[in-house]
Amino acid sequence: MGEETVGNKMIVLKDYVKGFPKESDLLLETSDTQLRVPDGCDGAVFVKNLYLSCDPYMRGRMSKLEGSYIDSFTLTGFGVCKVVDSTHPNFKKGDLVRGMTGWEEYSLIKSAEGLSKIQHTDVPLSYYTGILGMPGTTAYCGFYEVCSPKKGDTVFISAASGAVGQLVGQFAKLFGCYVVGSAGSKDKVDLLKNKFGFDEAFNYKEEPDLNAALKRYFPDGIDIYFENVGGKMLDAVLLNMKLYGRIAVCGMISQYNLEELEGVKNLFLLVVKRIRMEGFIVFDYAHLYPKYLEMVLPLIKQGKIVYVEDIVEGLENAPNALIGLFSGRNVGKQVVVVARE
Amino acid sequence: MGEETVGNKMIVLKDYVKGFPKESDLLLETSDTQLRVPDGCDGAVFVKNLYLSCDPYMRGRMSKLEGSYIDSFTLTGFGVCKVVDSTHPNFKKGDLVRGMTGWEEYSLIKSAEGLSKIQHTDVPLSYYTGILGMPGTTAYCGFYEVCSPKKGDTVFISAASGAVGQLVGQFAKLFGCYVVGSAGSKDKVDLLKNKFGFDEAFNYKEEPDLNAALKRYFPDGIDIYFENVGGKMLDAVLLNMKLYGRIAVCGMISQYNLEELEGVKNLFLLVVKRIRMEGFIVFDYAHLYPKYLEMVLPLIKQGKIVYVEDIVEGLENAPNALIGLFSGRNVGKQVVVVARE
Repeated sequence: MGEETVGNKMIVLKDYVKGFPKESDLLLETSDTQLRVPDGCDGAVFVKNLYLSCDPYMRGRMSKLEGSYIDSFTLTGFGVCKVVDSTHPNFKKGDLVRGMTGWEEYSLIKSAEGLSKIQHTDVPLSYYTGILGMPGTTAYCGFYEVCSPKKGDTVFISAASGAVGQLVGQFAKLFGCYVVGSAGSKDKVDLLKNKFGFDEAFNYKEEPDLNAALKRYFPDGIDIYFENVGGKMLDAVLLNMKLYGRIAVCGMISQYNLEELEGVKNLFLLVVKRIRMEGFIVFDYAHLYPKYLEMVLPLIKQGKIVYVEDIVEGLENAPNALIGLFSGRNVGKQVVVVARE
Repeated sequence: MGEETVGNKMIVLKDYVKGFPKESDLLLETSDTQLRVPDGCDGAVFVKNLYLSCDPYMRGRMSKLEGSYIDSFTLTGFGVCKVVDSTHPNFKKGDLVRGMTGWEEYSLIKSAEGLSKIQHTDVPLSYYTGILGMPGTTAYCGFYEVCSPKKGDTVFISAASGAVGQLVGQFAKLFGCYVVGSAGSKDKVDLLKNKFGFDEAFNYKEEPDLNAALKRYFPDGIDIYFENVGGKMLDAVLLNMKLYGRIAVCGMISQYNLEELEGVKNLFLLVVKRIRMEGFIVFDYAHLYPKYLEMVLPLIKQGKIVYVEDIVEGLENAPNALIGLFSGRNVGKQVVVVARE
């Protein structure tokens, strides 16, 4: 069977993108592949891609952005895959793995060290692109390691119904915090309040004065801000932070498609309020993954943590799904199903 | 003698200030005072002011700035004073004290708890407005507590010849760091390199491209930025920070007189580079003052730390001295001598 040649559909980035990416920037192409690791390619695995993760950081690779932490141009991302062939001792045919893969039906992964075998399959496999993957670990280390939470802290989360935000809010609630989230539609706000158990939530698009909105929900100020959006929201949050507040900077999605970045004006309040503002990337906390799984798997099984996914079927719909992230069209974690097994 | 009535010259803020303060915003007035604590006023001291400290934070009280941490309107500041009369058990006539006082010849200080008796008088008394006062303690806690320095770190300091910056640079050098400072004139740059022992220094006014200037002095990037100015400099620094860099935010003097604050655009680099940016105020570290004195007094006496002051004689010249801070006219710590004893 290894010699069988099949057409491999793939999503190719046409050119560097400026401003908001369009579906036409991403082309569906097909090339032939054999379903095995090529001869002489040791330590590699050949996988069938099952679930692909759409993540905001992927915007960075589409442009030549100074300091971007993913190389530009190769359309790759986190995914859940099934091993078809392996020349790596740690992986064998049939293994389910998670890690960086190509946006295509089949991928040859030459540096298989970046892959992890999936051990727990009594949860939806797609969860390994979300709650059990990079976004989940991001929420975990961002909240517990960067935010320095204390019981009773007031917590604000922007982009709160997204892949990371919905978990930060639930973790903070379980920890004993007062939690408010912002999102960009009524449906998302309902989700925050009724599904994820946030104390309050608001639609930032309906708030002409973000400062006033935050004052409404945090009359005594914000201890912790989990920053996913940047720009105007950050300026409004700074006005409402408490003394000794902490801002964990996870992302700034409002800025990724702007050719001219918004300036943040209220940074002097970092001094006045003695605020610690800290950027972080989940890669630095990879060692915490086993500890995180140990915590979160029982919570999932007991229904104490829920996870909402926005699932799109078919690789051909992947470009549209990815681009939808930047207008906030997704409700919950955006996943593309390439194949179910 | 306590019944003697004298004219007390004082500096009065005429009205709230917008934009750059002008000398005419501050009036010299005289009112009569008796040289003693008034009857029935327990726990107070009446002092003769010797040295007054001109500090950038004082701009805040001149305007109605949201979140400013000093009450507006009363022109007060740190000073060195001699006790003339006291109804407080901790102070007696003839004591030298440092703390918050009025910008006037004589002050009645009703809450004497904020004053500290000066124990070491074998150094210039004016030092208690600078290296041995608030700016010194600010440099100490900012560098050692907030910057988390490591030997060999690359350190950048803006407003580096100022009351705080000159000390941060010298502390960092003694700690084994590579230290570069920016300042606003050739004289100051010379001071940084030749008097304070910075490795390099540059005049930011002669650098049309701050990013390029920083790249010249930090080809491998900046570990620690001691932030005194904000605005464009911060944006340029963000481009040049190393991974896991630390930014201690002490002040943002470039912004204090602007009616429209400059926006800082490169904050997403906090994420990319996992930077911790932390605002601090010296008040939170007051308990470290004895430890600081223990370290710094021998260094001063051994000539291992130097301190440059810009001393102006006479209360009538205080407004001009204070206003000069905001155009960077002072060279070193700006002090006003009201009386020498």
